[in-house]
Amino acid sequence: MNKDKFKHYKIDEWTVSEVDLDFNYLNKSETLFSQGNGYLSVRGGFEEVYYGEQRNTFVSGVFNTVQGEHEVAELVNIADFTNTEIYVNGERFVMNPYNTKSYKRQMNYQTGELKRTLEWTTRDGIDLSIEFKRFVSLEDKHLLCASVSLLANKPCQITIVKSINGMVTNHGASHFEAGEMKYEAKKIGQFNQTTTQSQVTVSINSISNAYLNSAFVESFPQKTIGRRDLVSKYNFDLEENQELVLETISNVYTDRDLDHEPLNDVGLNQLIEVSNCRYDYFYDLNKIAWQKFWDLHDIRVESNDVIYQLNIRFALYHLRLMTPVHDNRMGIGAKGFTGEDYKGHSFWDTEIFILPFWIMSDPEVARNLLIYRYKLLNSAKEKAQRNGYLGAMYPWESGWITDLECTPEWGNIDVVTNKREPIWTGKKQIHITADIIYAMMQYVKMTGDQGFLDDYGYEMIYETAKFWTSRLEYNQEKDRYEILDVIGPDEYCEHIDNNAFTNYMCYWNIELAVQTFEKVDIKKYGQDSDLEQMKSILKKIYIPASDETGLIAQDDSYLNLSEFPELQRYKFEEKPLAIFKKYSMVHLHDYQVSKQADMVMLMLILKDKFSNQEILRNFDYYEQRTLHDSSLSYSMHAILAGQLNMPYYKDMFEKALEVDLNDDAQIAKTGIHAASIGGIWQNYVFALAGIGYYDGKLSIDPKMIDTIDQITFKLFYKGELLSFKVTERSVDIENLSRQNELEVYIMNKAYTLIESLSIELE
Amino acid sequence: MNKDKFKHYKIDEWTVSEVDLDFNYLNKSETLFSQGNGYLSVRGGFEEVYYGEQRNTFVSGVFNTVQGEHEVAELVNIADFTNTEIYVNGERFVMNPYNTKSYKRQMNYQTGELKRTLEWTTRDGIDLSIEFKRFVSLEDKHLLCASVSLLANKPCQITIVKSINGMVTNHGASHFEAGEMKYEAKKIGQFNQTTTQSQVTVSINSISNAYLNSAFVESFPQKTIGRRDLVSKYNFDLEENQELVLETISNVYTDRDLDHEPLNDVGLNQLIEVSNCRYDYFYDLNKIAWQKFWDLHDIRVESNDVIYQLNIRFALYHLRLMTPVHDNRMGIGAKGFTGEDYKGHSFWDTEIFILPFWIMSDPEVARNLLIYRYKLLNSAKEKAQRNGYLGAMYPWESGWITDLECTPEWGNIDVVTNKREPIWTGKKQIHITADIIYAMMQYVKMTGDQGFLDDYGYEMIYETAKFWTSRLEYNQEKDRYEILDVIGPDEYCEHIDNNAFTNYMCYWNIELAVQTFEKVDIKKYGQDSDLEQMKSILKKIYIPASDETGLIAQDDSYLNLSEFPELQRYKFEEKPLAIFKKYSMVHLHDYQVSKQADMVMLMLILKDKFSNQEILRNFDYYEQRTLHDSSLSYSMHAILAGQLNMPYYKDMFEKALEVDLNDDAQIAKTGIHAASIGGIWQNYVFALAGIGYYDGKLSIDPKMIDTIDQITFKLFYKGELLSFKVTERSVDIENLSRQNELEVYIMNKAYTLIESLSIELE
Repeated sequence: MNKDKFKHYKIDEWTVSEVDLDFNYLNKSETLFSQGNGYLSVRGGFEEVYYGEQRNTFVSGVFNTVQGEHEVAELVNIADFTNTEIYVNGERFVMNPYNTKSYKRQMNYQTGELKRTLEWTTRDGIDLSIEFKRFVSLEDKHLLCASVSLLANKPCQITIVKSINGMVTNHGASHFEAGEMKYEAKKIGQFNQTTTQSQVTVSINSISNAYLNSAFVESFPQKTIGRRDLVSKYNFDLEENQELVLETISNVYTDRDLDHEPLNDVGLNQLIEVSNCRYDYFYDLNKIAWQKFWDLHDIRVESNDVIYQLNIRFALYHLRLMTPVHDNRMGIGAKGFTGEDYKGHSFWDTEIFILPFWIMSDPEVARNLLIYRYKLLNSAKEKAQRNGYLGAMYPWESGWITDLECTPEWGNIDVVTNKREPIWTGKKQIHITADIIYAMMQYVKMTGDQGFLDDYGYEMIYETAKFWTSRLEYNQEKDRYEILDVIGPDEYCEHIDNNAFTNYMCYWNIELAVQTFEKVDIKKYGQDSDLEQMKSILKKIYIPASDETGLIAQDDSYLNLSEFPELQRYKFEEKPLAIFKKYSMVHLHDYQVSKQADMVMLMLILKDKFSNQEILRNFDYYEQRTLHDSSLSYSMHAILAGQLNMPYYKDMFEKALEVDLNDDAQIAKTGIHAASIGGIWQNYVFALAGIGYYDGKLSIDPKMIDTIDQITFKLFYKGELLSFKVTERSVDIENLSRQNELEVYIMNKAYTLIESLSIELE
Repeated sequence: MNKDKFKHYKIDEWTVSEVDLDFNYLNKSETLFSQGNGYLSVRGGFEEVYYGEQRNTFVSGVFNTVQGEHEVAELVNIADFTNTEIYVNGERFVMNPYNTKSYKRQMNYQTGELKRTLEWTTRDGIDLSIEFKRFVSLEDKHLLCASVSLLANKPCQITIVKSINGMVTNHGASHFEAGEMKYEAKKIGQFNQTTTQSQVTVSINSISNAYLNSAFVESFPQKTIGRRDLVSKYNFDLEENQELVLETISNVYTDRDLDHEPLNDVGLNQLIEVSNCRYDYFYDLNKIAWQKFWDLHDIRVESNDVIYQLNIRFALYHLRLMTPVHDNRMGIGAKGFTGEDYKGHSFWDTEIFILPFWIMSDPEVARNLLIYRYKLLNSAKEKAQRNGYLGAMYPWESGWITDLECTPEWGNIDVVTNKREPIWTGKKQIHITADIIYAMMQYVKMTGDQGFLDDYGYEMIYETAKFWTSRLEYNQEKDRYEILDVIGPDEYCEHIDNNAFTNYMCYWNIELAVQTFEKVDIKKYGQDSDLEQMKSILKKIYIPASDETGLIAQDDSYLNLSEFPELQRYKFEEKPLAIFKKYSMVHLHDYQVSKQADMVMLMLILKDKFSNQEILRNFDYYEQRTLHDSSLSYSMHAILAGQLNMPYYKDMFEKALEVDLNDDAQIAKTGIHAASIGGIWQNYVFALAGIGYYDGKLSIDPKMIDTIDQITFKLFYKGELLSFKVTERSVDIENLSRQNELEVYIMNKAYTLIESLSIELE
């Protein structure tokens, strides 16, 4: 990838801008320009309504299930309070190619501000300069600030209609009862709504102030309270070349929030207090908060192609946007916080793709995300019980901590068969249970947080190992324990037996339990006999071994299937998932065709278990058969390819980068891919800089690509904040915390890091 | 009113057209251009989506109540299947003043067809002629047919996207669970949805066929089945000057329908059968059905101003549109069948304003509407019981026959008080119980349908009279029965005692019961003692009498209230209901200010009880204090004014006509006013032609206005179909049935109508 691939968007190291009014990019830009802070998010739609738009406003953790046979808990679309409709002499402001020029919309990832400027001409020939700005505050997670500025070349009447519109749904599913609304102080609107099943109350408050040529003018709106909306209409007589600015401060609170209690009028009272404050006041606070974030987390890239710098910042921005750093009762959605798809559910994406960033960037946040999984233990136990197993079987998809398995059992109706496609992942993609434990141990290793193990971790290890012992099936004939009828990471292979990834992870999970409870008293969690049972089972778990060429069977059947005749077409010519225009899932079961990394994933996670020869052989074999139809695929391939100096590396790396941030209007329309975003960060840190963990120590083994000259960044490791500068020929490390000396490996050589190290590579 | 008042719309005797693309008229035109057949209706929106539109598709009787404290049963907005999005070389067809010319949209009330023609230019300069047509069939109540035609001056790629979109709500309230969908025969889409509470299943089916230069071309769409929608995308390569026509036949069935059972695939099978039939085939059948309607019901008007002719046809069209002639388990909504307001509920509007049309135009339909009220007896008894009364207390607002009182108890939140306005009508506007009986007796008198009385009517008379006996309160001091704390027709006077309208109607209702059960054995319905009780109470019911000037107090307090200081402003200067921008309901209670006809209503209905002097005096007194803020007001004033030769007459008549059919973009945006529509018909027949019922005989006493030369029409009376021709100077009557001789009064003179009568007036 390079910068020149961008036609519609203009990019620089902090921003993405569109300078063409092209409604084909409406949804794409909504995704790229999403704003939020892990608590509140809005998609980057226009202030005024357009056909085909997908407006979304989310508060993390506000899940609800609507009535209906196939419904599950989903992150709900709350009332829209970004809508701003402007009328000039009665004509509604709506952009089209005939009346709009000098259009520019810019998303600044450094500050989270989205700004639109344009010239608009009314039908009777009045020219207006219009500017919209808004941001979701990183400083105060409840706050969204917006501003619109208008300047006309002739006197005109301006009407600005601000609304809080509760007539919204998740693709037709309405999650709220009609709520209570009110106005205070003649102009502060409050809109409350309560979800129908989970009974969460969301309270939205909003105030607007007007300024003419920068001077405050008192303006009370015409107010309307409808069935499910609240509308404030502001009227102004604008003189020639006079500038009108209407600034709107809105906030959102819920009765699930931890930072206030009870809900009452907390949001309204906040607005009363700050009712005189201007947009820029809040903007400055927000900017400082973002600056703190960047000071710690930015990865600075030196390259002739600015895309590398932008891309990691785009990823870091979204990592912050998607993560509920303020709470530990909710996870990260598979679309981050940028769309309705996957219903806001958390998958293994969080642990395997995203958590590494937080472990090394803000361990406290990583800890919260793991406590979320601890709090889901009850749901996991319930799932195990319902499926006839012991211990804790983690839901494949999770919402709120008390929600049970959130994976729908049926997908949309297939237009060929007229039947709903069964979704087996909720029942069969069981590896997530081990993945969570794996991620937790990564956290513990990198932070040395023994307290976490004591308070949560040991119990999680016990319950998950217990699950695996009950899930394994004893094969009398072969005198071994097997895992039958699962789905591995490669979701094009369903109902398979002895998926290597799953079996290895199961083994790893039980082995961890055995090692743990040989040192820790198991009686706090179970019985001594549990440990004996785990030990005896462990010995006989079937772990697929490699053949003479080093190839390991992905599962019992894969290697016996036919080669997929249209591999080239769907791998190289068509867009991701195009295969389903012709094939349905059951057809794919007949072929050696993979959606995404499965063996590659395994060899990346449990790298120590495999020889380099095995890794190269399996990477080669399976990558050839992988369509990379999952956004989880390229990033993991790239890291492994990088670590093993494979020729695929740079190509995979670039493909991993362009999953979301690209110029294609059709890709990522419904939201970003959270796992891919985490994968981008991992590529910079684990592939380019080659950060790893070897022999109980931090290791650095850079694999820079030729188009990147240098990267610098900071990481936490065992309580020390380290800064890194990596080029193709050198590694510089400094311990900014300087509390303890650290043993590190650089290019497999051991060093002691006291204050700093500066190593020339050969 | 005259034709010249129309600027935006062009009118002729059958049609209303708009030739300007002005989106201020979007909702107004949706109302005026509504289409339907009493079973199915769609508002007259554009095929493609625009901001601010209010799309509605209703099936009569499909009510549902969503979860929430303030919710009641409402007529639900079913999935939209009129949406048609067109793309020309990828550019979405959307009209704006810059790309659209020769725009014309015409609603033809004679055939129910809505047609739009225009010239549209793409951004890259391709000119297209586009025509849209559609109708809801009067011949087959399940059917909606639509056609779009495109002709371009250059070769281009056309994509037409047809959808059945279930992501709709009633102002944010979603009434359906996600339903099942499928495609049959590669192109027939089926969308099923079931209401959440009432559990009615609605099945929508749709097929499209394409024609190039009139020749059928096989075309299978790209199909998508989403969460709550079904989308068919058709692609065509259009040559220069080639005409593409895409015709779509859709139907709607529900499992409440009486004409098929079970639901199954009845709609789908119908489409398979007629899959080769063209739009025009169905259109011709529909046109014949409308022609039958007009042959019987048209009122032909001779006048220099075409508005008089158009207006009665507009009213007749909507009378047919709003009435579920096919069923007797549902009523007529207060917005007809043209909008969500009033939630599709039936009020006394049906009996007092609309039923007279059906009684004299199609007595079988009137009978069905009265059977609906009979079937509501259980709800009425339940309401009586819940309120501590006996017998049947009819709901003020009714939905499906098993729904209880549907009047919400609370309205929207008031922006001044921040409190919901209580809605008292459900508890206090009790006169509806007598109104229904009154209307029933009108039906019986005009039709002589003794069978109705035997099967339904006597029971209704008994139960309602029983209610009144329990509702009346004995005033010891005055030794009389009173009715305290009610609302009469004048809804600006709440919690009043002894509302004249209510007391008179109560008296009339009990009197009817006494007269009835002196002849009919009461034991079938109650006990002999009931009759004695009714008789004894009847004697002591307080009926407000006139003072020496003839004035009757509207209630105990009205005449003691202050004069309303801003009467002139709100009566003549402001639009209806503007008063609530400044006053809330409780403020109005302090003044002699009326919303609508109350005493006028009474004197019109029970005219025989009052002297002409009393009527003139009260009309004069109360009209001066009436804002006519209800659409029910002018028509009743006009009829009474006409009958009594009052100077107000013509002005009132014209105001009654222009309630909905006018050129004001802001009026009737949310739907027509059903009572007013019925009132228009009554004005032509009861005022202009002076049709009445006197001394047990039909009477004719024409009150033509000077701008109308002649009207001709047909009516049913006691089983005979009569035709009338009325001018200022003559009345011609012909008995088309010629079964029985009839005694009639013409200008108070008795005649015998054998075959025909031709009378010159003096």
